[in-house]
Amino acid sequence: MSGDGFAPLPAPPYYAVIFSSTRKDGDDAGYAEAATRMLELARLQPGFLGVESTRGGDGFGITVSYWESEAAIRAWREHAEHAQVRRHGRAHWYEHYELRVARVERASGSGTPSR
Amino acid sequence: MSGDGFAPLPAPPYYAVIFSSTRKDGDDAGYAEAATRMLELARLQPGFLGVESTRGGDGFGITVSYWESEAAIRAWREHAEHAQVRRHGRAHWYEHYELRVARVERASGSGTPSR
Repeated sequence: MSGDGFAPLPAPPYYAVIFSSTRKDGDDAGYAEAATRMLELARLQPGFLGVESTRGGDGFGITVSYWESEAAIRAWREHAEHAQVRRHGRAHWYEHYELRVARVERASGSGTPSR
Repeated sequence: MSGDGFAPLPAPPYYAVIFSSTRKDGDDAGYAEAATRMLELARLQPGFLGVESTRGGDGFGITVSYWESEAAIRAWREHAEHAQVRRHGRAHWYEHYELRVARVERASGSGTPSR
């Protein structure tokens, strides 16, 4: 994440992993530590482009990570430490989650000409 | 949004509009009213599938709306009242926003078999 939360991204196409979740109560420290570590690790992966993440006061969160290719997403999915943390998260941290993998076709924003 | 924040969606493929934003200070009531109205209106559009949305305490928000087709996204984009509210939002409500349009290729979640 950049300082203001926005991921600086190249021009499309690229891929997005949209992860929506609600947290179980408890182990906030363990969860925060793992989230920080996973972000550090993700940044080191080939094809990682950026991430945007937020969670509201109601506990509903959305994290979108951006990748150069489906192969990069697959490699990150198969990363041993990431896989271990995902298993732990499914068992202990998440009440419910949904994951969608998408190919970004076009992009615009307040910093770029509107399309 | 369903009660718990998750959008019940069909099997892919479908399309996602990922909207990330930071809010300017002020006019919270006007913004909230418009957001509610836009959600009501979006639900009435052909091809609308669902929406997930959250904003953290730091003011960074992500809203992902889901659509059957690019044509449905285009039609919503061209909806007169929506276009007017977007113009107002760009001028008054948003400090910065980024919008990405993506084709969802696959999905999994805690409620469905992991893929």
